[in-house]
Amino acid sequence: MRYFKSDNTAAVSSEILEAIAAANDGVALAYGADRWSERLDAVFGEFFGTNVRVFAVSSGTAANSLALATFCPPWGTVLTHAEAHIERDECGAPEFFTGGAKLSLVEGAGAKIQPADLLARLAWFEPHVHGVQPRMLSITQATERGALYTPAEIRALAEIAHARGVAVHMDGARFANALVAQDVPAAELTWKSGVDVLSFGVTKNGGMNAEAVVFFDPTRVADFEFRRKRAGQLACKGRYAAVQLLAYIESGLWRRNAERANRLAGRIAAAAPGVLCEPQVTNQVFMKLGEARIASLSRDFGFYPWGPAGSGEARFVCSWDTPDEDVDALCAALSRPE
Amino acid sequence: MRYFKSDNTAAVSSEILEAIAAANDGVALAYGADRWSERLDAVFGEFFGTNVRVFAVSSGTAANSLALATFCPPWGTVLTHAEAHIERDECGAPEFFTGGAKLSLVEGAGAKIQPADLLARLAWFEPHVHGVQPRMLSITQATERGALYTPAEIRALAEIAHARGVAVHMDGARFANALVAQDVPAAELTWKSGVDVLSFGVTKNGGMNAEAVVFFDPTRVADFEFRRKRAGQLACKGRYAAVQLLAYIESGLWRRNAERANRLAGRIAAAAPGVLCEPQVTNQVFMKLGEARIASLSRDFGFYPWGPAGSGEARFVCSWDTPDEDVDALCAALSRPE
Amino acid sequence: MRYFKSDNTAAVSSEILEAIAAANDGVALAYGADRWSERLDAVFGEFFGTNVRVFAVSSGTAANSLALATFCPPWGTVLTHAEAHIERDECGAPEFFTGGAKLSLVEGAGAKIQPADLLARLAWFEPHVHGVQPRMLSITQATERGALYTPAEIRALAEIAHARGVAVHMDGARFANALVAQDVPAAELTWKSGVDVLSFGVTKNGGMNAEAVVFFDPTRVADFEFRRKRAGQLACKGRYAAVQLLAYIESGLWRRNAERANRLAGRIAAAAPGVLCEPQVTNQVFMKLGEARIASLSRDFGFYPWGPAGSGEARFVCSWDTPDEDVDALCAALSRPE
Amino acid sequence: MRYFKSDNTAAVSSEILEAIAAANDGVALAYGADRWSERLDAVFGEFFGTNVRVFAVSSGTAANSLALATFCPPWGTVLTHAEAHIERDECGAPEFFTGGAKLSLVEGAGAKIQPADLLARLAWFEPHVHGVQPRMLSITQATERGALYTPAEIRALAEIAHARGVAVHMDGARFANALVAQDVPAAELTWKSGVDVLSFGVTKNGGMNAEAVVFFDPTRVADFEFRRKRAGQLACKGRYAAVQLLAYIESGLWRRNAERANRLAGRIAAAAPGVLCEPQVTNQVFMKLGEARIASLSRDFGFYPWGPAGSGEARFVCSWDTPDEDVDALCAALSRPE
Repeated sequence: MRYFKSDNTAAVSSEILEAIAAANDGVALAYGADRWSERLDAVFGEFFGTNVRVFAVSSGTAANSLALATFCPPWGTVLTHAEAHIERDECGAPEFFTGGAKLSLVEGAGAKIQPADLLARLAWFEPHVHGVQPRMLSITQATERGALYTPAEIRALAEIAHARGVAVHMDGARFANALVAQDVPAAELTWKSGVDVLSFGVTKNGGMNAEAVVFFDPTRVADFEFRRKRAGQLACKGRYAAVQLLAYIESGLWRRNAERANRLAGRIAAAAPGVLCEPQVTNQVFMKLGEARIASLSRDFGFYPWGPAGSGEARFVCSWDTPDEDVDALCAALSRPE
Repeated sequence: MRYFKSDNTAAVSSEILEAIAAANDGVALAYGADRWSERLDAVFGEFFGTNVRVFAVSSGTAANSLALATFCPPWGTVLTHAEAHIERDECGAPEFFTGGAKLSLVEGAGAKIQPADLLARLAWFEPHVHGVQPRMLSITQATERGALYTPAEIRALAEIAHARGVAVHMDGARFANALVAQDVPAAELTWKSGVDVLSFGVTKNGGMNAEAVVFFDPTRVADFEFRRKRAGQLACKGRYAAVQLLAYIESGLWRRNAERANRLAGRIAAAAPGVLCEPQVTNQVFMKLGEARIASLSRDFGFYPWGPAGSGEARFVCSWDTPDEDVDALCAALSRPE
Repeated sequence: MRYFKSDNTAAVSSEILEAIAAANDGVALAYGADRWSERLDAVFGEFFGTNVRVFAVSSGTAANSLALATFCPPWGTVLTHAEAHIERDECGAPEFFTGGAKLSLVEGAGAKIQPADLLARLAWFEPHVHGVQPRMLSITQATERGALYTPAEIRALAEIAHARGVAVHMDGARFANALVAQDVPAAELTWKSGVDVLSFGVTKNGGMNAEAVVFFDPTRVADFEFRRKRAGQLACKGRYAAVQLLAYIESGLWRRNAERANRLAGRIAAAAPGVLCEPQVTNQVFMKLGEARIASLSRDFGFYPWGPAGSGEARFVCSWDTPDEDVDALCAALSRPE
Repeated sequence: MRYFKSDNTAAVSSEILEAIAAANDGVALAYGADRWSERLDAVFGEFFGTNVRVFAVSSGTAANSLALATFCPPWGTVLTHAEAHIERDECGAPEFFTGGAKLSLVEGAGAKIQPADLLARLAWFEPHVHGVQPRMLSITQATERGALYTPAEIRALAEIAHARGVAVHMDGARFANALVAQDVPAAELTWKSGVDVLSFGVTKNGGMNAEAVVFFDPTRVADFEFRRKRAGQLACKGRYAAVQLLAYIESGLWRRNAERANRLAGRIAAAAPGVLCEPQVTNQVFMKLGEARIASLSRDFGFYPWGPAGSGEARFVCSWDTPDEDVDALCAALSRPE
């Protein structure tokens, strides 16, 4: 079986394992007081070209939820796309971490939020105690349909949000894939365009079990560190998370891995351009294959049907270590007449 | 500086790193559907000699809090020792995960709960809606003062608890140290003596970032799995946690590492028996040294003053990888007249 | 200014004040152990023709949220209409009381949920830990657009819900208005059609500050009483809430007040049948008047514009004590050519 | 049976019922926008001699918990006496409303906290993420053992608290009793001595179902109003709560009722001075009667045994409407040789 289910099923890059081994030498202070953890701010600061505060957590769900809880009070609401991971795939984690804030949903093609739709959704909320108050916007880069927000698009959304006192979170579970696809500076995709806090995914793109939460204004970290500890997300042996994040950035692993995954996805898309139901730009490919084709392909390939039941859509995801021959095989199968 | 601050500052055993490397081969289904995660129940079941359900999480705080939340409703209370880690060192994590349950404290020498004190504390709670209801007892093995509960002691507490409908949790952050110190079957220290759920610590004793939550009645796991996901504690690439737990048990690492740490602590205790303020039986040594001695030792050794300010007490912890020469040096320093 | 903003602005019926005065005599045990509170189950049981458990709370928000929290775990979701009061007007109270459960929204004309839409929404949820699990359906009777669910309609929804393990809650803030409008037994509108728990509104229809939560299966009250106390909703002097509920039922006040309010609304609807945007069946009237007409009517009448900004819709609500002359004046104004 | 169980069992003063009846006239805007609610700040401001913000809620538990949640974050802790109502009698409401903050207990005679004990307790908390952070001190006036804090005593505690960034809450369920017992200005017992927020009890002392939360710094109300709504504590027909609070203050009812209750308690204390186990100063009397005497008195009088089982202590509470003849009878019984 050749797997295109998710980049979650990939192994860990050797750079990460080597960094872990290199740090595995003698004593290191616990709970983030080690010398690797102490370099995080500087290394990510350089990457983003600004002063940042960076914290390691063990999962993307934790990264997103802790970021949201830092900005959104229990009586607040997080505006997000109806297909967002935080809405559909985290079993209510944002609600748990925030103490019961709501997610308020916006629709939009490509799992993207458009400025007009954000404005319309914001207009629903009145500044009185009967309704929750918008406090955060969460957008996903790349989106759950593999689409991208350009810097200009982010800026348009962030301006609307900030004008209403709404902070901007970016779920960057596949941020590296988005970055290499656009080839703009990381700063342009984040703080320069108004992103206040980023969940910077590492695990899907070659890491083992570490994600970074990046605050672009070091004075607005608020009570994040208490919340992280309280959520069981402050690693005891912090060095083993820190070195994953450092190696990811410093060795250029983020770029190498994302470029390969995106490129492989491009080959898949090119093999059957007629059935693409979303433009392919990152490492995800969405195709309208029909139920029969999905069934036949499922004999040899692992992938997820997508969208509502009966849609005939499917998602194929390439990871940094998807074998070339698996892609060859999939391309051949897709090219073959049914 | 020679470190005796905590077993948290130790490195990761080579057996763990090797297990990770061995699993780092190709695709594995995410979120615990991998073939390593699927072996957890069987391997731990054999270790404990009964059917169990085992779940990996990323920290001891998460293990404890998720275990408590599975048995204790928001309007319940967890009886525990006043010095328990869940009370003092987790920033309110049990309250967070349970949705606001209370911890109700019991005093006792050696950070141990005595049956009479448990009975007295339970007698406070009346079965009416004005007060929280006791639903869980949490004991620590080994305790925060390095002491042990024998199987008979656990049984005495568990019988009292169960008679009141109170489930029994064991915080086993140092369970291996307790087990080798007593040399009884793991079953005797747990389910045969009435423990319902165990936080089985791995990280402090050679692991990297994985702990096991062990349910001894597979039918009483309740909604643990939803709570784990919702807390951001379901690892995306689950194999890398699972193999840590498997290697820990299957290679006998738990025993080797704990034996060495305990033995080193025994040497420290033997070097200055007159100042011990707790019997030394595991890998922690508590000494009443006086403030002046603490200050002078602090120049060469890293360790924590313990107890209330001015108590003159100090804690020394040995880990699996504490260098012999560090222990030699500490023993020499302790033996030296002031 | 003549008021049609809400039945919340009404005064309290004399029957309620008299019942309070009659109970205001000497000592009564606190926290619901008084002789009035103890009659609640019997009196409501007779009203509904079955064994019930009834609890008084101080607000409709508390009634709804406590009912939901009794059936829906933190990792669950409550299916409800997008216009439901619990979604729009309670500042996230359901999320607070449940410990962070989600509301999942269903659209539908008249703020009613249709069986096909319920089925479609339920089909979204998969039985795995990545998503919240449907545990409750909440429907409003009469709806936020003044519409009714017939017994057959309730039954159709409840059968779908129960088949999925989903309990059925009815938000009956205007239950009396719905009951007199349909002229069916209360049993038919509730438990006989599958309703598990009802928020039975009293305040809007002549009460002062008491609402009833009615459980139709006395064995499924679960931990409601602990949750009520913990939420500050167990009245210290319980008799003053209990007598409101008793008087409401026993004196037939529920019927008299609701009949009058509905009848007045009927007169308003009849004055301008051409602009009705919802059928008028209870005490709410929804009209498409256009912005200019709304502005001119607002000079003499208090009412709310309704729907999205610029819709030109308005809501007029009659209460048990709306003066006839206010209705006359409104009818005259509506009949007058613009 | 003559009742001395609690002031909760009392009826409602006629001044309160009359105020309700007087307000029961026609339309009033809902949710606190009525003309009575709008007078609350001014009337309580005059009472306390400073600018205040005042909010009505339906119970003392709600008043306390909402006040605490406004100042104490989920990762904070509220220091309070081990016998405090918020610790023992509210079923974990503070933990629920705060999102899981902890209560940290201080012992002390008379259920009073002494400055040295507060200092010692505060010294436990270290400013790191491993432990909860002290954010609030809650003291009860009069205490759960009927004792008083003088202005100087409050000031001493508040200075310690404020120096640590800890806000001061006063649980004034029996504030009026404390005020008339000390005969000092209300300002001296509150803001002039450092109290930041007061739960001002009305229900026990002649009210029906309304309590006031009084903020002494109008700029520090923070998100109280959102939390109140979200907790189901914003009354729909707000006027009926507001007029209770207004009548309580403006008619001098607080003083008349408290003076009578205190005076009756004084007669009871004087009847058996030798068995008093706490000085009697307010409307509560604590006596060490022995189990046999408690049993015999229980035949004719309703009252609570107090303290730990077997202590032989009992509590007698007088309310504003305790009949003189009941007090006569109790005094006679107490004077009688056993």
